[in-house]
Amino acid sequence: MFISTLLCVLLANTVSGLENGLARTPPMGWLSWERFRCNTDCKNDPDNCISDRLFRKMADLVVSEGYAAAGYKYINIDDCWLEKERNFAGQLVADRERFPYGIKDLSNYIHSKGLKFGIYEDYGNYTCAGYPGILGHLEKDAQTFASWDVDYVKLDGCYSHPAEMDLGYPEFGYYLNRTGRPMVYSCSWPVYQIYAGIVPNFKSIIDSCNLWRNFDDIQDSWASLESIIDYYGNNQDAIVPNAGPGHFNDPDMLIVGNFGLSYEQSKTQFALWAILAAPLLMSVDLRTIRPEYKAILQNRKIIAVDQDPLGIQGRRIYKHRGIEIWARPITPVVQGYFSYAIAFLNRRTDGTPSDIAVTLRELGLINSGGYQVEDLYENVSYGVLSPSTKIKVKVNPSGVVILRANVNADPRSTVRFGQYSTPTTLRPTDNLLTFQTFVPQSTARLPIAQPTRLPALTSTRTHFNPFLPIQL
Amino acid sequence: MFISTLLCVLLANTVSGLENGLARTPPMGWLSWERFRCNTDCKNDPDNCISDRLFRKMADLVVSEGYAAAGYKYINIDDCWLEKERNFAGQLVADRERFPYGIKDLSNYIHSKGLKFGIYEDYGNYTCAGYPGILGHLEKDAQTFASWDVDYVKLDGCYSHPAEMDLGYPEFGYYLNRTGRPMVYSCSWPVYQIYAGIVPNFKSIIDSCNLWRNFDDIQDSWASLESIIDYYGNNQDAIVPNAGPGHFNDPDMLIVGNFGLSYEQSKTQFALWAILAAPLLMSVDLRTIRPEYKAILQNRKIIAVDQDPLGIQGRRIYKHRGIEIWARPITPVVQGYFSYAIAFLNRRTDGTPSDIAVTLRELGLINSGGYQVEDLYENVSYGVLSPSTKIKVKVNPSGVVILRANVNADPRSTVRFGQYSTPTTLRPTDNLLTFQTFVPQSTARLPIAQPTRLPALTSTRTHFNPFLPIQL
Repeated sequence: MFISTLLCVLLANTVSGLENGLARTPPMGWLSWERFRCNTDCKNDPDNCISDRLFRKMADLVVSEGYAAAGYKYINIDDCWLEKERNFAGQLVADRERFPYGIKDLSNYIHSKGLKFGIYEDYGNYTCAGYPGILGHLEKDAQTFASWDVDYVKLDGCYSHPAEMDLGYPEFGYYLNRTGRPMVYSCSWPVYQIYAGIVPNFKSIIDSCNLWRNFDDIQDSWASLESIIDYYGNNQDAIVPNAGPGHFNDPDMLIVGNFGLSYEQSKTQFALWAILAAPLLMSVDLRTIRPEYKAILQNRKIIAVDQDPLGIQGRRIYKHRGIEIWARPITPVVQGYFSYAIAFLNRRTDGTPSDIAVTLRELGLINSGGYQVEDLYENVSYGVLSPSTKIKVKVNPSGVVILRANVNADPRSTVRFGQYSTPTTLRPTDNLLTFQTFVPQSTARLPIAQPTRLPALTSTRTHFNPFLPIQL
Repeated sequence: MFISTLLCVLLANTVSGLENGLARTPPMGWLSWERFRCNTDCKNDPDNCISDRLFRKMADLVVSEGYAAAGYKYINIDDCWLEKERNFAGQLVADRERFPYGIKDLSNYIHSKGLKFGIYEDYGNYTCAGYPGILGHLEKDAQTFASWDVDYVKLDGCYSHPAEMDLGYPEFGYYLNRTGRPMVYSCSWPVYQIYAGIVPNFKSIIDSCNLWRNFDDIQDSWASLESIIDYYGNNQDAIVPNAGPGHFNDPDMLIVGNFGLSYEQSKTQFALWAILAAPLLMSVDLRTIRPEYKAILQNRKIIAVDQDPLGIQGRRIYKHRGIEIWARPITPVVQGYFSYAIAFLNRRTDGTPSDIAVTLRELGLINSGGYQVEDLYENVSYGVLSPSTKIKVKVNPSGVVILRANVNADPRSTVRFGQYSTPTTLRPTDNLLTFQTFVPQSTARLPIAQPTRLPALTSTRTHFNPFLPIQL
C-alpha cells in the first residue's frame, strides 16, 4: 500500500506535478478564518457563526459591493464546517445544523453568483479545531470535494507528522488532479516542516501546490503583520525564487477593515501583499466594513500589481532606521528592462511623516528612456522620469507609498519586447543602496539625563534641523 | 547660594507647596509633540513646522470644531520653540523666524479665543532637542513665562541630574508661584528618577506639581499604548493613591486620530485615559482628523468620567487571558456607595469579539438599590440593574466597552450623600475576581503538529464550542 502510493506520487510528479493550469496569478477572494474563526454558536450569534448563511451573505456582498468586479472570486470556507463524524460511507459531512442544505447546495449558490467555491481540510487525523482530517481518506475526500464542485482546497497540517507531509501533500494533490476537476491546492506543508526543524523541499512543494504557507497565521494586529513582513524580507533569498505563475507563497489573509490595523497600516498590508505576489484573500465582515477600507481592497491599480502576469515576487531592497523599500519587477518589459512596483514603508512610530529621497537609478531603474511614474494610492501621475531623477516621498508612520514605474521606450532605440533580465543595480541584499533617508531626530526623549553644566553651545555647533531640505 | 535656595524651597513647601488652585480636574487641551515633534523646517514644510502659524491654526480649530465646547482649553507648545541663545538680558527668546511676533503675541491670540496657553521648558542645561534649558535661570524664566501670560508649564528633564530634581523641580515651582500668575505645573521629575534608579518622593512631587510623568513618552503605535496601559496597571498600588484634585499622574498625550491606532484602539486609549484620570492632551492634526476620531475626542460622557470631581484614579481589577477590566470610582456617591466607570478591554488579537459576562457585585457594585448602567460609546442606557445582575459585553479585539454605573438610591433607605468608602469587593489586586470570561479558542493554530493515528474521537469528548451561551 505504501509503495503503491509512493509510486503514484512519483509518477504524478514526473508526469505532471500539479500543473493544473490554475493560479496563473495569485488567487483573490474571501476566507472566513481570521475574522470569524471557529464561532459555531449559531444559537447566540447567528449572524457571525460559521454557517451556510454567512457564506451566502458574503458571496452576495462580494458581487453587490463590487469586489467581484475588482477581481475577487473565491468564497472560501475555513475550519469548523464539519460534523464531528464521517457518515456511514466514510464521507465527510458538513455540520447538519449550520449547513442544513449541505455543501453542494452552497457551492451551487456561490457558482450561481459567478464566483468560485473553496473549502478547508487538514492532512492529519483532525483539523486544527478538532474536526475529522483526511488522513486515511485522501482519495475519497478528493472525490467528495470534486462532487461538490469545489474550486479551491486549503489543506492545513494539524495533527500530522511534518515528516510525512513530503509524501502526503503530493498524494492528496494527485487525487485532486485525478478527479478531473481543477482545484487550486493551498498547502500548509512548509510552515509545519519549518517549525519542526525540517528544511522544506520547495521543488516538490512547487510541483505539488499552487500556494503554500511559510510562516505564522496572521492575527488582528500590526505586530503580527510586521512579523510577517519581516519574515518575508529576512528570508527572501530562499522564498522569492519559488514564486511564479501557478505557484505562489502565501503570507496569509488580508486583515484590512478589521479591528487591529489603522488606515495607514491597512494600506501597508495591501501594498506589501501586492509586492509579494500574495493571494488576496480578504477576511473581513463585508457587511460592516467602512468605505475607506473597502476602497483599499478595491484599489484597481494595486490589484494590477498583485496580478501582474510575470508572477515575480518582489524583494526588500533597503532597510535602515525603520525605513524600508520593496520592489517588484512587473510588466511591461521593454528592451530587457522591467517595469517596477516600488513600496516605501515607514516602520517608525515617531508621529510625523518621514521623507525618503532617492534617484530611480538607485532603485535599479536604469532604462535610459525613463519610466512613467505613478502613485497608486494618491492616483497621481508624475510623467516620465529619467533614472537620474531624485524623487522624494513623504511616508506616514506605519504607512506606505506605493509607486508604479512603467519602463518607457528609449526614444533612441528600437523597442524590443521580451528580454528579461534583472537590472544589476537592484541589489537583493539589504543596505547596499547608498541613498540617504531623512527621518525625524530627537524622538527617544526619555531618558537622556546627562551631567549638568555641559559646555555652552558655540556658534560652530550644527543647527538642529531634522528636516534637511531635499530638492526633487 | 545653594543653602539660600534650599531654604527657599523648604519654606515654600512648608507654607504652601504648589497648591495653586489649578487642575482640580485633569487639564484638557492640545499639545504639539507627539504629532509634530521637532519639525523646524518651515521652508519646506510650512504647514507642519513648529511655528506661530501652527498654534494659531490649532487654537482656531479647537474653538471652531467644537473641542473647546467639549472642555479642551489649553493650547500647549512643546519643544523646539526657542532660539538657541538667550538674549542680551539672559531671557529666553522664541525662534525669531518661526515665531516672528513673539510668544506674548501668540499668547494674546490664544487668550482672545477664550483658551489658555501652555509652554515647554526643561530643568537641565538644554531641552531634549538641544535648546536652552532653565538651569541657572529659574527665577528669571518663571518671570518671563508670567510676563507672557503663560497658563501651563511642562518642564522636561533632559540634560540634568535626576538626583538634583528633588530640589530643582520644587524650586522652579516656587518661582512660578511667586510670580502671582497661576500656572499649571507639569513635571517630568519622577520618570527621570525612575530611569536613574531613584525612588521618587511622591509626597514632594504631589506638593510641587499639578501633573507628573511616570513612564515613557507615548509613540504612535498600539504597542506603545499597550506598554503604558501595562505600566499603569502593574504599578497601580504605588501610582493611584497619588492622584487627586490638583495633582494627577500623566500617562502622556492622546494619539487618537493619528497614524498608528485603529478606530478600536483609539476608543481604548480615550476610555482608559478617562479611567486613569489622565490629562486629555490631544496631539493630532486637527485640520485633517477624520470625523469618527473627532467624535471619540468629543465624547461628552467619557470626558465627564475623566473630569469627575472626586479625582480618584481608576484601577485594573481583572486581567486574565487578554481580557482586562478597569474601574474608577466616580460621583454620584450615595450612602457611602460610589458610582463607577467600568472599562472592559480585549487585548486579544484573535480576530473576533470576545464576550465578557460578570455580575455587578463581582465588579464591586454592591449597593442594594442598584445602579443606572449606561454604555458610553454606544450611548445606550440599560436602566437600573441590581448587584446580582449578570451583564454580558462583547468587546472587539484591541477594543473597549466602557460603562457608567451611577449608584441608585436604595428605595428602602434614606439617601445620604458624602460617605466615601471603597466597597471591599473592589479588589485592588489582579485576578481575585471569580467570574469567567469567554474568549475564542483554537487561535494558536501553528504549530500544533501531533503524532498521527490519535485515538478516534468518542462520543464522550466535549463538543468544541468556544462560545458558551451566557444569559444576561
